[in-house]
Amino acid sequence: MAKYAIGVDYGTESGRAVLVNVQTGEEVATAVHPYADGVIDEQLPGSNRSLPHDFALQNPQDYIEVLKVTVPQVLRQSGVSADDVIGIGTDFTACTMLPVKADGTPLCFLPEWRANPYAWVKLWKHHAAQPQANQLNETARQMGEEWLKWYGGKISSEWLIPKIWETAEKAPEVYAAADKFVEAADWIVWQMTGEEKRNACTAGYKAIWNKQKGYPQNEFFAALHPALADVVETKLSREIYPLGQKAGGLTAEMARLTGLNVGTAVPIGNVDAHVSAPASAVTQPGQMVMIMGTSTCHILIGDQERVVEGMCGVVEDGVVPGLFGYEAGQSCVGDHFAWFVDNGVPLAYYEEAQTRGLTVHQLLEEKAAAQKPGAHGLVALDWWNGNRSILVDVDLTGLIIGMTLATKPEDIYRALIEATAYGTRVIIESFEKSGVPVTELVAAGGLPGRNKLLMQIYADVTGRTIQVTGTEQAGAFGSAMFAAVAAGTAVGGYDSIVDAAANMARLQDVVYTPIPEHQAVYDRLFAEYQLLHDYFGRGANDVMKRLKALKAEVA
Amino acid sequence: MAKYAIGVDYGTESGRAVLVNVQTGEEVATAVHPYADGVIDEQLPGSNRSLPHDFALQNPQDYIEVLKVTVPQVLRQSGVSADDVIGIGTDFTACTMLPVKADGTPLCFLPEWRANPYAWVKLWKHHAAQPQANQLNETARQMGEEWLKWYGGKISSEWLIPKIWETAEKAPEVYAAADKFVEAADWIVWQMTGEEKRNACTAGYKAIWNKQKGYPQNEFFAALHPALADVVETKLSREIYPLGQKAGGLTAEMARLTGLNVGTAVPIGNVDAHVSAPASAVTQPGQMVMIMGTSTCHILIGDQERVVEGMCGVVEDGVVPGLFGYEAGQSCVGDHFAWFVDNGVPLAYYEEAQTRGLTVHQLLEEKAAAQKPGAHGLVALDWWNGNRSILVDVDLTGLIIGMTLATKPEDIYRALIEATAYGTRVIIESFEKSGVPVTELVAAGGLPGRNKLLMQIYADVTGRTIQVTGTEQAGAFGSAMFAAVAAGTAVGGYDSIVDAAANMARLQDVVYTPIPEHQAVYDRLFAEYQLLHDYFGRGANDVMKRLKALKAEVA
Repeated sequence: MAKYAIGVDYGTESGRAVLVNVQTGEEVATAVHPYADGVIDEQLPGSNRSLPHDFALQNPQDYIEVLKVTVPQVLRQSGVSADDVIGIGTDFTACTMLPVKADGTPLCFLPEWRANPYAWVKLWKHHAAQPQANQLNETARQMGEEWLKWYGGKISSEWLIPKIWETAEKAPEVYAAADKFVEAADWIVWQMTGEEKRNACTAGYKAIWNKQKGYPQNEFFAALHPALADVVETKLSREIYPLGQKAGGLTAEMARLTGLNVGTAVPIGNVDAHVSAPASAVTQPGQMVMIMGTSTCHILIGDQERVVEGMCGVVEDGVVPGLFGYEAGQSCVGDHFAWFVDNGVPLAYYEEAQTRGLTVHQLLEEKAAAQKPGAHGLVALDWWNGNRSILVDVDLTGLIIGMTLATKPEDIYRALIEATAYGTRVIIESFEKSGVPVTELVAAGGLPGRNKLLMQIYADVTGRTIQVTGTEQAGAFGSAMFAAVAAGTAVGGYDSIVDAAANMARLQDVVYTPIPEHQAVYDRLFAEYQLLHDYFGRGANDVMKRLKALKAEVA
Repeated sequence: MAKYAIGVDYGTESGRAVLVNVQTGEEVATAVHPYADGVIDEQLPGSNRSLPHDFALQNPQDYIEVLKVTVPQVLRQSGVSADDVIGIGTDFTACTMLPVKADGTPLCFLPEWRANPYAWVKLWKHHAAQPQANQLNETARQMGEEWLKWYGGKISSEWLIPKIWETAEKAPEVYAAADKFVEAADWIVWQMTGEEKRNACTAGYKAIWNKQKGYPQNEFFAALHPALADVVETKLSREIYPLGQKAGGLTAEMARLTGLNVGTAVPIGNVDAHVSAPASAVTQPGQMVMIMGTSTCHILIGDQERVVEGMCGVVEDGVVPGLFGYEAGQSCVGDHFAWFVDNGVPLAYYEEAQTRGLTVHQLLEEKAAAQKPGAHGLVALDWWNGNRSILVDVDLTGLIIGMTLATKPEDIYRALIEATAYGTRVIIESFEKSGVPVTELVAAGGLPGRNKLLMQIYADVTGRTIQVTGTEQAGAFGSAMFAAVAAGTAVGGYDSIVDAAANMARLQDVVYTPIPEHQAVYDRLFAEYQLLHDYFGRGANDVMKRLKALKAEVA
């Protein structure tokens, strides 16, 4: 009798459930439910008071609704009995966090707090804690905090401590009323199981927690703000659980809500990017998954903890239990190509694309694919949205060099693709330079399926074979895999995520292999990229920052 | 009784005559005649043998036809009697040169030479003499030739000596058969008057002649090629005439051909850009005319001879007799904007322009004009077609820096305009640094009338008031002015080109004045431009050259 697991992926605008055959990895049914309140960045629901422009909130009720709608839907669609569903797992955007009472009730569910924006979920892209992040980084540098180096030298305003600090400072009454601050990734598991079990992934990547060393010392928190001195003891938890463990079983209420059985296994919470690694069969040291969409997130498995320049974080048990998960990222990848198509492609190309029944992207890809590497004479720096890794600098901007009167739109399109590939190579080389080998690349996300030229360029530029994940919903699929692990072999699941990946995760047949003549040319072009990267990115000429400052000044 | 003069401007594709009232400067009639054989760059007339791709020839018969067609036409149109036309002057592209017999007959008119490409006119943009130019520059450097510094350190392949050398080397039989090599500017005057009188402008700017020092020594020519050892004595002339002098009077045959009187005064030959200076009232030290079209040519008047980095040449009597004419240039100006409109403007902008009855240029100008300086956060290097002044380097290419996902087409359009203005400021500062003051700017050519934003940006960037020439055909108009000078006061003309300019040349009423707040911002942006200009243009990072070399290598 076939057994099934359900994975639920909580994205920025909606939640998505997939029901997977645990033996074969077949994706049997999928359902998506958009959040009723979406991203709350103008007014709170039921209010007409404007939020500040860098606010991005959510309503936790929407997360419950996703379970209520999508789980029954995939059961119905597939005709699978709840008796054959051995587990349900979840993954979330991060750091997406909320203040709750001791029993897990979100403050924003309570009438007395409903009108206070700080009582709601702060979504990952809530950027109002930038002043706190800046001051946190400055304080950490001054106090010589050694953990700073595990995060590329900078804690982001998107992460947990700046977001909590912002609340302590701007809304001390909310800070006082909150018994806990919790990642939404852990909150949803708490709701499903009744167990507050915090996961190592968000703790490590977003909350400055380290398996060996724990959180920063209380003195550090005290130096930030008196109210934060005991934040770990009073508002967080020092008990952190590795990915792959079972958090608990579905509560009776959740069973009723979803149509699953009481006690169905639920794994520890997880993060969308990180769960994509095992979903792409990336579970061994040296394997890297690139989740490529508007931006790219790189997750690499290592067997040792190393300091790597410009990485976003390294977390023991953070991706695969017993190993180290490294994260790095490029803040602008698909967004470059979308920007170019929207802003830089002339009328004649739209007409040609329309006549030939192609999208403009397809037309540009076709024209660019007809070129040899180096033929357009261009190099770009892929910094239209700053640089996440390895420079960790949001104030960097884009550059193109080499234009002549003969430069065509497809030349620039290809140069932008190449620039993002060079950016990935910089990240790979930074890992290798620090003793973390990168031996295999797997591509996931929306881009790889849409642009073969891009994939070949990445293979040629990095000099590595690239495979492509077999699932189009790596987040939800990976969560289903973790659900099968939480359920265990006794009921038809797996003992470990490595076993689950070996049996469930699939890669596409297509393999992109570096073409030696292209590699040779790209080695030379990459040297040019690196020269420009270091010149403009490491302080020799801070023109990008000065232009940005001038722009703000005249605005 | 009103007196008139005719100016004939020989361009690349056609000749243009204008008949001007000598007292008022009124342009009474204009006629244009395209060259029947145009630019000969595929096959010689009557031949099906392909020319090499860097050949650009012309048929001197076409120059005669221009006189034959356009002069009667302006007389007819205006109703002016030949008795009231006191002079006819000409200006030409340069260096446009041809081999002739001792009597001025072009070799290509002779049946025995007609099939030999080297017997025809080499147009200014004939580029087949690049190897000779390279070797000439190398030889001059090795021999420590001091005249090299008067030409920005480089003699162009477009100039006279490389073109003659190319013929000596590739077609020694043509070299031997040619009694003279002559600029088309001087040849047409020779045809009109029967007098071979070489002008100081082409001799100085294109033939390495200096009023004080003459040509380079014969040893230098001998070092280039044995056949060239006596080239000055045998094929050129050491008698050079300052601009503003009378070459002679129209011959009987020319009078019959044009309908003008025998003996009508004809001035010494001239060059299109240089004749535009007095046509724009630029005759005094410190005044500069910018002839702005696809590229820009800067002509500046000085009262001393100075070495200026990156100028194209300095010639005594080369623009105004008794003064020094300096020439500099930007090889890509309007071409940047045309490239951008053709290659970088999205569909929506075409649609908006069409709906609103604007050209895309006008729409972009309108949107860009709504911005404050510095608001787009961009800086560009205006090197899409290399850099003529002050770096004298055809292998430099374009750059844009500062793009974000919010960058709009009008931002780039404005940045390109600004880049060309920074390029002009670099030229002006180079002159001033070398002790050649630039006090007044006058704009001529096609661009100033079409783009007010561009003119204001030039005023703001250079910090100088800019006036605009009153004539749309500065070449032909200036030639008519010189014709009036050749005729002299006795018959109603002028004694000097300065007098002619004072009476005939007009400027438009519009004056572009620097806006102090804009100037302050542009001073900061210009500092960024200059930093990038020096970094990429002076050898610190030769990435542009390496990319260009790689492009050629993979082609």
